[in-house]
Amino acid sequence: MDFLQTNLIYVVPILGLIGILVMITKSIWVSKQPSGDEKMTELAGYIADGAMAFLKAEWRVLSIFVLFAGILLAYSGSIHEVNGKEIHSSWIISIAFVIGAVFSATAGYIGMRVATKANVRTTHAARTSLKQALKVSFTGGTVMGLGVAGLAVLGLGGLFIIFLSIFADLGEHTVKTAIEVLTGFSLGAESIALFARVGGGIYTKAADVGADLVGKVEAGIPEDDVRNPATIADNVGDNVGDVAGMGADLFGSYVATILATMVLGQEIIVKDNFGGMSPILLPMVICGLGIIFSIIGTWFVTIKDENSNVQNALNLGNWSSIVITGIASYFIVMWMLPETLSLRGYDFSSINVFYAIIVGLVVGTIMSIVTEYYTAMGKAPVDSIVQQSSTGHATNIIAGLSVGMKSTVIPILVLAAGIMTSYYFAGLYGVAIAAAGMMATTAMQLAIDAFGPIADNAGGIAEMSQLPPEVRERTDNLDAVGNTTAATGKGFAIASAALTSLALFAAFVGIAGIDAIDIYKAPVLAGLFVGGMIPFIFSALCIQAVGRAAMDMVQEVRRQFREIPGIMEYKAKPEYEKCVAISTKASIREMMLPGAIALVTPVLVGFVFGPEVLGGLLAGVTVSGVLMGIFQSNAGGAWDNAKKSFEKGVLINGEMYYKKSEPHKASVTGDTVGDPFKDTSGPSMNILIKLMSIVSLVIAPYIAVNATQPTVQVKAKTEHCQTAMKSGEVKACCAKPGMADRFKQK
Amino acid sequence: MDFLQTNLIYVVPILGLIGILVMITKSIWVSKQPSGDEKMTELAGYIADGAMAFLKAEWRVLSIFVLFAGILLAYSGSIHEVNGKEIHSSWIISIAFVIGAVFSATAGYIGMRVATKANVRTTHAARTSLKQALKVSFTGGTVMGLGVAGLAVLGLGGLFIIFLSIFADLGEHTVKTAIEVLTGFSLGAESIALFARVGGGIYTKAADVGADLVGKVEAGIPEDDVRNPATIADNVGDNVGDVAGMGADLFGSYVATILATMVLGQEIIVKDNFGGMSPILLPMVICGLGIIFSIIGTWFVTIKDENSNVQNALNLGNWSSIVITGIASYFIVMWMLPETLSLRGYDFSSINVFYAIIVGLVVGTIMSIVTEYYTAMGKAPVDSIVQQSSTGHATNIIAGLSVGMKSTVIPILVLAAGIMTSYYFAGLYGVAIAAAGMMATTAMQLAIDAFGPIADNAGGIAEMSQLPPEVRERTDNLDAVGNTTAATGKGFAIASAALTSLALFAAFVGIAGIDAIDIYKAPVLAGLFVGGMIPFIFSALCIQAVGRAAMDMVQEVRRQFREIPGIMEYKAKPEYEKCVAISTKASIREMMLPGAIALVTPVLVGFVFGPEVLGGLLAGVTVSGVLMGIFQSNAGGAWDNAKKSFEKGVLINGEMYYKKSEPHKASVTGDTVGDPFKDTSGPSMNILIKLMSIVSLVIAPYIAVNATQPTVQVKAKTEHCQTAMKSGEVKACCAKPGMADRFKQK
Repeated sequence: MDFLQTNLIYVVPILGLIGILVMITKSIWVSKQPSGDEKMTELAGYIADGAMAFLKAEWRVLSIFVLFAGILLAYSGSIHEVNGKEIHSSWIISIAFVIGAVFSATAGYIGMRVATKANVRTTHAARTSLKQALKVSFTGGTVMGLGVAGLAVLGLGGLFIIFLSIFADLGEHTVKTAIEVLTGFSLGAESIALFARVGGGIYTKAADVGADLVGKVEAGIPEDDVRNPATIADNVGDNVGDVAGMGADLFGSYVATILATMVLGQEIIVKDNFGGMSPILLPMVICGLGIIFSIIGTWFVTIKDENSNVQNALNLGNWSSIVITGIASYFIVMWMLPETLSLRGYDFSSINVFYAIIVGLVVGTIMSIVTEYYTAMGKAPVDSIVQQSSTGHATNIIAGLSVGMKSTVIPILVLAAGIMTSYYFAGLYGVAIAAAGMMATTAMQLAIDAFGPIADNAGGIAEMSQLPPEVRERTDNLDAVGNTTAATGKGFAIASAALTSLALFAAFVGIAGIDAIDIYKAPVLAGLFVGGMIPFIFSALCIQAVGRAAMDMVQEVRRQFREIPGIMEYKAKPEYEKCVAISTKASIREMMLPGAIALVTPVLVGFVFGPEVLGGLLAGVTVSGVLMGIFQSNAGGAWDNAKKSFEKGVLINGEMYYKKSEPHKASVTGDTVGDPFKDTSGPSMNILIKLMSIVSLVIAPYIAVNATQPTVQVKAKTEHCQTAMKSGEVKACCAKPGMADRFKQK
Repeated sequence: MDFLQTNLIYVVPILGLIGILVMITKSIWVSKQPSGDEKMTELAGYIADGAMAFLKAEWRVLSIFVLFAGILLAYSGSIHEVNGKEIHSSWIISIAFVIGAVFSATAGYIGMRVATKANVRTTHAARTSLKQALKVSFTGGTVMGLGVAGLAVLGLGGLFIIFLSIFADLGEHTVKTAIEVLTGFSLGAESIALFARVGGGIYTKAADVGADLVGKVEAGIPEDDVRNPATIADNVGDNVGDVAGMGADLFGSYVATILATMVLGQEIIVKDNFGGMSPILLPMVICGLGIIFSIIGTWFVTIKDENSNVQNALNLGNWSSIVITGIASYFIVMWMLPETLSLRGYDFSSINVFYAIIVGLVVGTIMSIVTEYYTAMGKAPVDSIVQQSSTGHATNIIAGLSVGMKSTVIPILVLAAGIMTSYYFAGLYGVAIAAAGMMATTAMQLAIDAFGPIADNAGGIAEMSQLPPEVRERTDNLDAVGNTTAATGKGFAIASAALTSLALFAAFVGIAGIDAIDIYKAPVLAGLFVGGMIPFIFSALCIQAVGRAAMDMVQEVRRQFREIPGIMEYKAKPEYEKCVAISTKASIREMMLPGAIALVTPVLVGFVFGPEVLGGLLAGVTVSGVLMGIFQSNAGGAWDNAKKSFEKGVLINGEMYYKKSEPHKASVTGDTVGDPFKDTSGPSMNILIKLMSIVSLVIAPYIAVNATQPTVQVKAKTEHCQTAMKSGEVKACCAKPGMADRFKQK
């Protein structure tokens, strides 16, 4: 036990490594599964190639961005002198940033790679049994989940150890500086999320809408028809948006949450058996062990035969990982933390930290359940949309919008209650650790999430390869479950983004050297207003981007139908790759402006108006972003399932209506409006609120209230500090007066 | 001058009286105009009767509500003993509340009455000339404007004088208590606004959608056809929503703004020639004189001949009143205020107060212009919707939603800049006086606003009476201008609601005895989240209400077509009054829940969680409400004009499209979605944010930080106080510890 206590910090990256190792074995297993006949393999090949084409194009832009942002970060200033050796901490932040970006991109790559393998293998497995099809598709999802969680924990844990040793000579400032530098890792991860989630969201809907508009509406061929040039892009989109996008989103939340808890934890002064580091190590340990518990959870995801309920199997897996995490948290907290702790004058006991973790688990669960309720087929909200489709397009839209708006009520009340109770239990540390508790089972959540698009793709391949109906039936079964998990997954993602942002917000205030954000001050209130507005313009830009990109796609599909003779008669093959290229190009072009808004606004506001106004801005963005995220995602999800309800027929005013009826046409309109809502603008809110919070956290030391002097004064102060250092009065100096002051106390 | 200085307080209600006198002469003039032939008079009679039927039904519910709320207020507690005489200040608040409600309802009644007279007289005037038609319709609008402003200033000014004399014995607490009691007047006014704006908004759209769905779509008869049973209800709706609703909305803003400025003004200790009251009297004087300047402005609203530009005439009138107000403010401020002032430690000079007023005028103007840009025919935003109508219903909807979201950017930046600069100039008093400056020309703004629905009705009567085309042309000309003024009016109303809420927010904090609203405290942040959510659920409820009420209307119209033979052949008269009754009943039924949310939430949060959390809630409601208000109003306005663009034909991809084309059908869908957005849920945001702020202001003394003890303690304290009073230690006692403490100092 003593050995474990001293070396607990090394256990963290090892837990990450274990996750990665299990991921590798699962990945190999998936690859080994048979991929079916030639046609299936060919089609799957197109999808895989398309997905890789997107990743490559994205990475090209990304690498320029990362390089540029990295250099900017590196030259931003802070230099520590430790024992006569200059340590450029801004260079270290920059390196952490690049590593964060690379790790997140790698996780996305692995997930996409395996998902585009698992899809066709699931189709093939569906030829034999539902059980096997579930096994293949869920294992594919597990690879994504473990990849994300494993790499995140490995990266965070590993870098923390390295940074502690780099800054070892800073004495009592070692931990604080190491954690501050670690924010670079989080910023890197979230930047990738921006590209994957926002860019990916634009990609997937541009392809989807483009494929549908010309294929289904104009040419009258079914969805997932090989003759449609955009069909491959559409299937690629499922992977790009739902696998890589969701993965990067949760990677970002996961890392940011742990980091924010560490920032707040380092302010807690405790006497423990972990060198006073227990509040800092706790979130890493819980999330690291969460990987193991998620692996255990995956064992429960299995069914007996064709008539088994797939949803129940997934639920069982999910619940076991959550319950084990909850129970384990009790013992970990009791083992690690001393009986009483205090953060910024708020005293609390260790058991209260455990309660806060439970709050986080409960909030995440309720958010998922509520999201499912508002978007599930057969439930009252979706049914209200179905009923109002009978009076036309307009009433369908009105119904969907009001379902979306109404769906914000419970999640916000739950979130508010979560904030208050977790704060009540353990102050701001409680809010952060609640988020960490919720994120602990990320590997499992993501496995379930990524299973959806794999099943969706598997169905598409079955359709395109014209496999027998019982195969399609099995993939449809999985796909239907996948739609539900997509909804709950989105609820979880929003909840995680919200709690993460709050944790980051709490961490920001501490580092920025302020102790209140008083919206009764006019400039702070103005910041709140401007912050609240940003999700609106961000959403508008995302929605417009989808519209423009879809138009590009429509033009290309029409051109191919016109210029390539024989497509309709299956005699000529469409140029799938051209459609993939168009979606890829458009998505990257269109995410520039919204991305820039998210990155630049906090920097501008922070440096011009100071940290308190920036705090007001962040609060505005978070509140408005969470609301717009829930509103748009749920409205979109509900419209989608209202449309799907017509497939089996619906009863309106005593009459049955099916596909191609007038109410069904109205429901298609709703679904089309909902597409960018639920897959582009809605989920991109997660990224917006987290990214702006992380950028603020990164710049916090530079805009801290004790660091507002102009550069000349900074230089003077630095010189003064260096003189003082030579005389032995001060141990180290840096380019910023805030830090210089800090070191003076030594 | 000396005489004026001493008696300035009596000048205020006199200015209000002047406004009312001018209103009466104008009202008599309108009544004297000829109302055309028998058929026109008959139709106008239906509309007038319908409007009165709505008002009567509304008043029945209203009087119950006012009675109930009044009694609740009266029994809420505070009793002052002054010179051995008990003064029940809560009873006085209650009386002020009833008077506020009665005054606002009276203003609405007068406006509706004259509007429903002016409509047919405008139609008749249009038979001779455009000039005369403008004169009649605008004079009708002027009656509404002067009625609202006149009654508001008379009520506020008169009650203030009365309350000062009632509380004269309270010494230095006289003014503070008088103003606190005056909040009842504001609450009463805003309660009427809730009924008129939200109920009226539901009424007008239920009738509109119901009339269109069965009449235009099912029966294929044109809009405003006498055969449609709902057509009268539709025309009544224009008056109910746009005249009475807008009037009550601005009545509420006007009163609340002046009041909030007075609350902040009484905290400024000055040596002036007005007994130290100059900062309190200033907003009343400016708004009172604004009535006179508005009357002067109306003189400019006239045209030469048939080819004159009506819009220019209205603009000239509007601008003159604004410019005169601006110039006059300089002299008033310089005359009234001492050179330097100080509010809560913020020092500023009198000229800065003038600058703040100018900021208010500029903010209001820009908000109106921006609103017009985003909703005007031929401008880029509306054109983008037109273009995207070519690819169907869904893209039309997406385009409209994104126009609405984008349209929030400039108004919010302007608002934020307005908050910061007015605060910079004169602290929180600056923010409030900026709002007061903006509201000074309310009479003129409302005259222009109310002109719109009168012209709209005039066109309807011309159509129903089958008058010759040149008459319809003239009314169409006025109607088109009315659509633009409706848009700018909405912008002004939102801006006024936003600034009013901010002023109320500032006033609230002072009375609640807190000096910061720190969103870094978890419960306050939770309040911010919950507050942000309320506009979403409020909007959803309003939208649903319209849907349900419209369905009731559809059933009734169908029934009449079915059961009354000969309607279609003009042989039988439809039962107009039944449709009016349905819309009336539905609107009042449906506004109960949203109204209750607005009224109860602040009370609940305030008493359970205290003033600071309530402050967070208010900030959340205001930010989110302003955003949702702008988003919905502008999206709706843009959809409306996108549809109207098809009447003259639009060019899409090199082809001309007209009415009944596929893109036009898509644009009709957008318009139908936009209807509840722009006329119900959007404008109701104004009421929501103001009402919650006023309720908070009213309960502020009861939840003040020094008044949080439970009732038992309160009693004990009161008894203790009364003992102290008998011994001469204290001058007066009340039922609340907060106030008891306050009086102790005497």
